[in-house]
Amino acid sequence: MLNLQTVPTPFPIEDYLRRVSARVDGHLQRLGGEWKRAGPPRLAEALEYALLGGGKRLRPALVLAACEALGGDSGDDGLAMRFALALEMIHTYSLVHDDLPCMDDDELRRGRPTVHKAYDEATAMLVGDGLQSLAFRHLLATRDPRAAALAALLAENAWRMVEGQALDIGAEGRALSEREVLELMAAKTGALITAAVVGGAIAATGSASGLEPVGQMLGLAFQIADDLLDLTGDAATLGKRVGKDEAAGKATLPSLVGVDEARRRANTACDAALESLESLGGPAEALRALARFVVTRRR
Amino acid sequence: MLNLQTVPTPFPIEDYLRRVSARVDGHLQRLGGEWKRAGPPRLAEALEYALLGGGKRLRPALVLAACEALGGDSGDDGLAMRFALALEMIHTYSLVHDDLPCMDDDELRRGRPTVHKAYDEATAMLVGDGLQSLAFRHLLATRDPRAAALAALLAENAWRMVEGQALDIGAEGRALSEREVLELMAAKTGALITAAVVGGAIAATGSASGLEPVGQMLGLAFQIADDLLDLTGDAATLGKRVGKDEAAGKATLPSLVGVDEARRRANTACDAALESLESLGGPAEALRALARFVVTRRR
Repeated sequence: MLNLQTVPTPFPIEDYLRRVSARVDGHLQRLGGEWKRAGPPRLAEALEYALLGGGKRLRPALVLAACEALGGDSGDDGLAMRFALALEMIHTYSLVHDDLPCMDDDELRRGRPTVHKAYDEATAMLVGDGLQSLAFRHLLATRDPRAAALAALLAENAWRMVEGQALDIGAEGRALSEREVLELMAAKTGALITAAVVGGAIAATGSASGLEPVGQMLGLAFQIADDLLDLTGDAATLGKRVGKDEAAGKATLPSLVGVDEARRRANTACDAALESLESLGGPAEALRALARFVVTRRR
Repeated sequence: MLNLQTVPTPFPIEDYLRRVSARVDGHLQRLGGEWKRAGPPRLAEALEYALLGGGKRLRPALVLAACEALGGDSGDDGLAMRFALALEMIHTYSLVHDDLPCMDDDELRRGRPTVHKAYDEATAMLVGDGLQSLAFRHLLATRDPRAAALAALLAENAWRMVEGQALDIGAEGRALSEREVLELMAAKTGALITAAVVGGAIAATGSASGLEPVGQMLGLAFQIADDLLDLTGDAATLGKRVGKDEAAGKATLPSLVGVDEARRRANTACDAALESLESLGGPAEALRALARFVVTRRR
């Protein structure tokens, strides 16, 4: 007779992400209401449009799961949720500015017109600028002494992301070496993914607690998976243009080493992250499931 | 015989500003060198170009003078200087983004091509985005427990400034009431001037120490003086286009109440600030001189 105890139940990662999304959306809606009451309503509307466009909320989920993995409080009133919202604001600002005509010039994001298309370029600029300020404001609106360390982490990685963007625009049309592509990926995307995992750890324990390499490996795996989706994915599922890296002549890891080798490296990075997390046992279940989701996702 | 003791020596405000400028420039040059060694050199060059363009350093001077007025440490290694540099980075980011084609579309700033003219629009966007991150990073790179309160102050007022910009672009071509113009001025310019004075106080004493109204009055006086210079000043002295508010149909206090009445209100605000500062005596001498400079400056 089959012993059912030995068949592990797969972690319901889609449910987990849905629950995190609902909580994050709720908080952002409430904040949007506050911004609308206090200041220019059109700016607040555009902020809500940018923030509530149906993102996966992967970074908030990583923050909360990393916090849970270390036994921290991932509840609505905890520091981890505060950091998760701030990080999502930074991520959203980067998308809004990245879509502008002087950057990627994109008209579609998550299946809807980008902010500068739905509003105008000046408003999109201010939405991005304002979201960066609001991220720090929200994070620091607490007396929790760990907020300063989290704000320093956020500032460091928001700056790293800008460095990555600068490498990216400097690189267009020029052949990059594999080392340069990896450096660009680590800065442009890896920084905020790393910040998510490390931030969750700081919220839980006051320090990175050894999770920094996990964040870096997941950042790498995430960006390779993203580049693969851009090459092989479907615009309708992704809600954005595909094939744009190739069209822009941007060097990505798949374009340098091939699709199969890139996929192998994403899986290797994911496996390394999973191995690091093994010793944390049950509480790290959601974080391990997110690590697997990063490389298997279709959107 | 004339009693020389009763003739007060005028405070050498131009010397004070020159000394602050030299110190601020020195710090920013050193930071620019660090950014260049660590990341994309073209971005770091554009950051230096934006930061070292010969600004008056009025906000850093207000931070340091407010700190001195309350007996705090305004030295190179103190928290006040750290906040002064962060505030100047936020101010500089706002200028770089404000000059972009989708905003004011200016080609000249402090007598030199604006960042997007000297480099390109994408780089100017990243310079502004990066400066905001770097401001918080620099401010929070200390274990001083007051840094978190200063970062919260910075975030609050950086956001207020964006709200002011949004009011400004929403207002173009539309007649604003005097109340609306005052609200716009308080947000767009007043916020960072207030933050300078309050930040200096927090660095010195841990709290605003009653200087918030002084900051607000100086912010108002500064913006009226700025609008008057735009109407009556000289492009060569100012290093930027003049008459552009009028050309853009922007409502300013001088356009609503007339040049003489606007000048009277700037002086009244300045006098109120001076009166508030009287009880602080000698240590507030530089801050009082800065208050007078705000309304008498020609650049």
